[in-house]
Amino acid sequence: MSETRFAKTPKPPYYAVIFCSQRTGRGEADYEAAAEHMFELVQQQPGFLGVESTRDAQGFGITVAYFDSEENIRRWRNHGDHAATRERGKREWYEHFEVRVAKVERAYNGPPK
Amino acid sequence: MSETRFAKTPKPPYYAVIFCSQRTGRGEADYEAAAEHMFELVQQQPGFLGVESTRDAQGFGITVAYFDSEENIRRWRNHGDHAATRERGKREWYEHFEVRVAKVERAYNGPPK
Repeated sequence: MSETRFAKTPKPPYYAVIFCSQRTGRGEADYEAAAEHMFELVQQQPGFLGVESTRDAQGFGITVAYFDSEENIRRWRNHGDHAATRERGKREWYEHFEVRVAKVERAYNGPPK
Repeated sequence: MSETRFAKTPKPPYYAVIFCSQRTGRGEADYEAAAEHMFELVQQQPGFLGVESTRDAQGFGITVAYFDSEENIRRWRNHGDHAATRERGKREWYEHFEVRVAKVERAYNGPPK
């Protein structure tokens, strides 16, 4: 079982950044390298709690990153490397994306073990 | 561009049900049929605002369903067909899943058109 792909989040409340995107299909190698770098970087950020991410063969992906507070989401948003990578993403990698910032109020999981 | 795969949500606040799951690999045809039925059914529910969903070749998927209120999320949770399908999912289709219910506080999209 791929349990490592699930975020190990604490009891709510905490925050989720829901990033839903359609890839252009351009620049796959650069995109992969940047995504890996962002993944390493986000894990070092204050208040980062975990991330879950998947993308299908049509290039439609959802990534949910969890943080302890709105303040730390803003801090990550303003990180220099992250901001530069986002700008490149807007120009080259994404046809379209939607970002939603949400406060997680309750959570549960399954199936019972 | 696959814009139809993005949910057309109103201005926040509204609610998101974030469902992250690892498929077992068993029962693919039944699973697909049930998923399609649930997709049709959820669109008829009071307060349903939209859904975004993707799953990769390893069977790791994220679905985010949007509703106008916690009350309507509970109503959908208690819907007979949905409850029965969830029970089957726990038994047969999912190795593991995480559900998080969150209040969307702000949202934006890109790239600028």
